[in-house]
Amino acid sequence: MTSAPLEPFAVTIDFATGALVPDPDVLDRRLADLDGYFVADIDDPGVGAYTVHEVRVPPTGNNLLSSTTVLAPGKVGDEYFFTKGHFHAIRDRAEIYLTLSGEGLLVMALEDGRTVTKEMRPGIANYVPGHWAHRSVNTGTTPLVFYAVYIGDAGYDYATIAERGFPVIVVEGEEGPEVRPNPRYVAS
Amino acid sequence: MTSAPLEPFAVTIDFATGALVPDPDVLDRRLADLDGYFVADIDDPGVGAYTVHEVRVPPTGNNLLSSTTVLAPGKVGDEYFFTKGHFHAIRDRAEIYLTLSGEGLLVMALEDGRTVTKEMRPGIANYVPGHWAHRSVNTGTTPLVFYAVYIGDAGYDYATIAERGFPVIVVEGEEGPEVRPNPRYVAS
Ligand SMILES: [Mn+2]
Ligand SMILES: [Mn+2]
Repeated sequence: MTSAPLEPFAVTIDFATGALVPDPDVLDRRLADLDGYFVADIDDPGVGAYTVHEVRVPPTGNNLLSSTTVLAPGKVGDEYFFTKGHFHAIRDRAEIYLTLSGEGLLVMALEDGRTVTKEMRPGIANYVPGHWAHRSVNTGTTPLVFYAVYIGDAGYDYATIAERGFPVIVVEGEEGPEVRPNPRYVAS
Repeated sequence: MTSAPLEPFAVTIDFATGALVPDPDVLDRRLADLDGYFVADIDDPGVGAYTVHEVRVPPTGNNLLSSTTVLAPGKVGDEYFFTKGHFHAIRDRAEIYLTLSGEGLLVMALEDGRTVTKEMRPGIANYVPGHWAHRSVNTGTTPLVFYAVYIGDAGYDYATIAERGFPVIVVEGEEGPEVRPNPRYVAS
């Protein structure tokens, strides 16, 4: 081996709130950080959209990175709050999302524009295979809390989504959430 | 890429029982399968020790394998029921155990005999770094249920534990579980 083994450790996850103990690495995303991501304009850029609570290990292909995400309920125009979403920098790396609280949709897209949308609710473990960009959407009225595990060297490609958008958007329709084509999606 | 991307999919986990929906791949371990693992003799080899409910994906280094394990409460002599435990065939591959129900101990050991023992209870995410053999022990009175995620190509080396045992055993002492040296451990 090239380095000494890591020491085993543990974190405690509050399934209701997504808080970790210990919780040293919290990323705080406001609507301002999502400027340009929604079809409608953002009214109040100071509103909190989501927090990511990371468990830190070396980002190598033999380790597992993990985090909880707490996505607030809310809408910008008729679009539900969502996470930025990304491809993995190393495209073929998989990820698992285990929903702990709340309800939502997991939108996944290939670079060719094909999309798959899956339900998120407590107890559902979503498998995000390699090559699928992934964004979670809170379609409920309470925080959407999920635990993510992914291969340590996966990395993040946020730029492709920032530039092209997702092929679909999730809006509040007459009878609940509707998945519709994104009028601003830039096909490759 | 060398093959087409997998399709996204989901399984639903019952956090109380560990059952999956769908649940096509259930491994059933009886005490007979643990013959020679405990210090004391087994009275009834037909007694169920644990079930493993596997989520199948190709076992490659870009994928994540996952499963729930349901470990029954019970003892053989004064040792609590445990899983066989293994090193990963590719030694440096990490694993995460998220406990969903029950209580227990996660015993981890390096090949040089050093051990670390961590608590398992609902909400605790245990990080098992590469190079650490791992065995879960049910020290409670209800099933110990946990969700495991590991890198797809990790593989399993059960033989080393079958031959040498773990350096420590977990027994019921006067004031609860006690971790003691294993009199049958074969040091390397
Ligand atoms: Mn990801
Ligand atoms: Mn393992």
